Amino acid sequence: MAENRMMSLGALVAARESGKASPELMVALCRDAIARNDSKIMAFSHVAADPVIGNEGPLAGVAVGVKDIFDSFDQPTSYGSSAYAGHQPFADAAIVDLARRQGATIIGKTATTEFAFFHPAETVNPHNPAHTPGGSSSGSAAAIAAGMVPVAIGTQTGGSVIRPAAFCGVAGYKPSFRLLPATGMKHFAPSLDTVGLFAASVSDVALFAGLLTGRDLSVEPVDPGQVRVGLYRCAELGSVDAEMQDALSAAADRAADAGFDVGEIDEPPALAEARQAHSIIQDHEAGLACGPDLSRFRDLLSQQLIEVIERGQSISPQAYDEARRRAKRGRAAARLMFGEVDILLSPSAPGAAPHGLESTGDPRFNKLWTLMGTPAVNIPGFKSGSGLPLGIQAIARFGRDRQLLSVAAALEPLFAAPPNSQASE
Amino acid sequence: MAENRMMSLGALVAARESGKASPELMVALCRDAIARNDSKIMAFSHVAADPVIGNEGPLAGVAVGVKDIFDSFDQPTSYGSSAYAGHQPFADAAIVDLARRQGATIIGKTATTEFAFFHPAETVNPHNPAHTPGGSSSGSAAAIAAGMVPVAIGTQTGGSVIRPAAFCGVAGYKPSFRLLPATGMKHFAPSLDTVGLFAASVSDVALFAGLLTGRDLSVEPVDPGQVRVGLYRCAELGSVDAEMQDALSAAADRAADAGFDVGEIDEPPALAEARQAHSIIQDHEAGLACGPDLSRFRDLLSQQLIEVIERGQSISPQAYDEARRRAKRGRAAARLMFGEVDILLSPSAPGAAPHGLESTGDPRFNKLWTLMGTPAVNIPGFKSGSGLPLGIQAIARFGRDRQLLSVAAALEPLFAAPPNSQASE
Repeated sequence: MAENRMMSLGALVAARESGKASPELMVALCRDAIARNDSKIMAFSHVAADPVIGNEGPLAGVAVGVKDIFDSFDQPTSYGSSAYAGHQPFADAAIVDLARRQGATIIGKTATTEFAFFHPAETVNPHNPAHTPGGSSSGSAAAIAAGMVPVAIGTQTGGSVIRPAAFCGVAGYKPSFRLLPATGMKHFAPSLDTVGLFAASVSDVALFAGLLTGRDLSVEPVDPGQVRVGLYRCAELGSVDAEMQDALSAAADRAADAGFDVGEIDEPPALAEARQAHSIIQDHEAGLACGPDLSRFRDLLSQQLIEVIERGQSISPQAYDEARRRAKRGRAAARLMFGEVDILLSPSAPGAAPHGLESTGDPRFNKLWTLMGTPAVNIPGFKSGSGLPLGIQAIARFGRDRQLLSVAAALEPLFAAPPNSQASE
Repeated sequence: MAENRMMSLGALVAARESGKASPELMVALCRDAIARNDSKIMAFSHVAADPVIGNEGPLAGVAVGVKDIFDSFDQPTSYGSSAYAGHQPFADAAIVDLARRQGATIIGKTATTEFAFFHPAETVNPHNPAHTPGGSSSGSAAAIAAGMVPVAIGTQTGGSVIRPAAFCGVAGYKPSFRLLPATGMKHFAPSLDTVGLFAASVSDVALFAGLLTGRDLSVEPVDPGQVRVGLYRCAELGSVDAEMQDALSAAADRAADAGFDVGEIDEPPALAEARQAHSIIQDHEAGLACGPDLSRFRDLLSQQLIEVIERGQSISPQAYDEARRRAKRGRAAARLMFGEVDILLSPSAPGAAPHGLESTGDPRFNKLWTLMGTPAVNIPGFKSGSGLPLGIQAIARFGRDRQLLSVAAALEPLFAAPPNSQASE
């Protein structure tokens, strides 16, 4: 199973701090794992030939896979597009520089769908190569799942962190909007483009976020009786498959058994309306942000990408402004809702990773939370009958990232426990 | 006087539409003006050798000067920094592509301070070359004032559109946040970086904004009696020079004489507090966005820029989050305030352009409105005793750009009238 191979950031950092692993060894482990596995997984679009390995900083020796949507001055950056094949940016993206300043090693660039939209990369799902790893941060999620790196960086504009994390059975964290800097990424829809992180477990991704930013995001103990957990009831739930339905029920049952204050939350009408605004905002902004590419490289873009850019350019500014107002009303409704509940639970995707590599799956459970700017975490643990991961997403109020990560870390072992270990099943 | 030479976009477009001027002729006029004047003004960092001149689109024949903080695939882009000397981006910024798609000719790149911060470009003030043109959009404002182009594009993170417009005696328009796309600019502080426009008059800048975006932003007649105009009383008013004090009083008097409903508005406490948040947000974001430059090009950056990036990197995320919360409370207070008043009047700067080229002047009257995301326009017209322009800024509620431009256009001839033509003086 893929997850047995995963590297734990916490374990690696502890080994370094106790002197059991040098930064050189930590990076060498990853290079070996990439050399052994990536010809099958195709998670990396580029692997650094001779990466800098620092001895200073909280991330010394930590090999980071960086989604190839971020500029890097020392590695080619093609944004998943043949229009940018071999493109060598002049400067790093802000998040790449931040990782380097904290001592991390940029071990390679991970495969992305074209411009982080839907046209797939070559990456396969480490749990079953006939299935998609999800997108758009395909390579970042798969690189964690296949045990090639302990941490990776991605982005989410629709569902591009949470969905591939779910399909690959890893922890994916989409922070509150602007918690991580987006400067130097290839923007698709700037008001939605959110930088996110991947690791083997929720506590690992929280540790990574904390070491990267200097924020206190590490997981702390939670008192379940003090945490109101709401199963989020929205119309989209009608479209999930039976296995996901079961996983969601089991998630609620196991949380309740562990003492969490579990209830149900109906989607407020303003959030149902905001949901409809995501595509208008995304497409209009993509029409502007990717307009230069359509103007110059049309022949090198996929039909799907051409269509969304053209559709975006045909959306009137009035419709865009109205969608922004709907999003704003939605954010106000979300604030009110998070007065009633601390953590929402929702599927990360309608089911397990679909068969085939043509589609990266469906972001319908992710787009609203990207638009709201609220933090979300994919909690791995549940499995489909065929052994594919089923991800459950936890969501919290804007700015409550640490509470979210702490609760998600408490739920993770409950979700991962085998069914027969649970009294409620 | 510089303003007598200025080119009116409205007149040029009318001439084209009536067949009196071809796009080729329109662009040739600008090329000639640049060739005659720019060796003195130094507004352009690069002039296109053989620019594309279109015959289609609402901006056909309109030569645009683009601040050299925006990427252009066919002209070098150095962000006012020797670290990027000769840098040739792979793709256009979104606003450059948008202008091209509307038929405009990108005639050249206009000089900017280093990374659009404070270290000055070589540009001089067309009204008096011993004085600063303001910054950071120095070249864009000066190119309009010197009659070299009818329109130009700039950015404002602190006061970089309104202040140079004021110092150069042109109309400068900082739209509501995200009305114009920022993708492909060299970001300094992404949550503040706002794309803005310059033209000879308020109606010209409104026409440019409308033709560029497809929004209905053209100036419409206003009924002064229906417009509540508030003289904005903040602590910073104590620091303006006597000539600006007189101009502001005259502005209020002339507006009242014209029938506007003029009163005074005291700065709400939440806005006074938000004002203090600007530098924290700007510097922290600059520490991230310009971190890659500090890491790699330190020796090629000015001391002033190094200091702000280092200061930003030392600001804690907690302080940044608190500043964001203060900004948010400020925006709520601004919404309430704009229930009481339609248009605020405030100095664009503490006085006329300072003597010398070492400093680009003081953004203290601009930073709050950048942080609030509210639209602002510099209205030219008043003059100092030595003949330098004194700019008055009008500000409106977020999204009320058309009303703002319409009222500003109605005020502009009142401000430009000689003192003895006014009964009140």
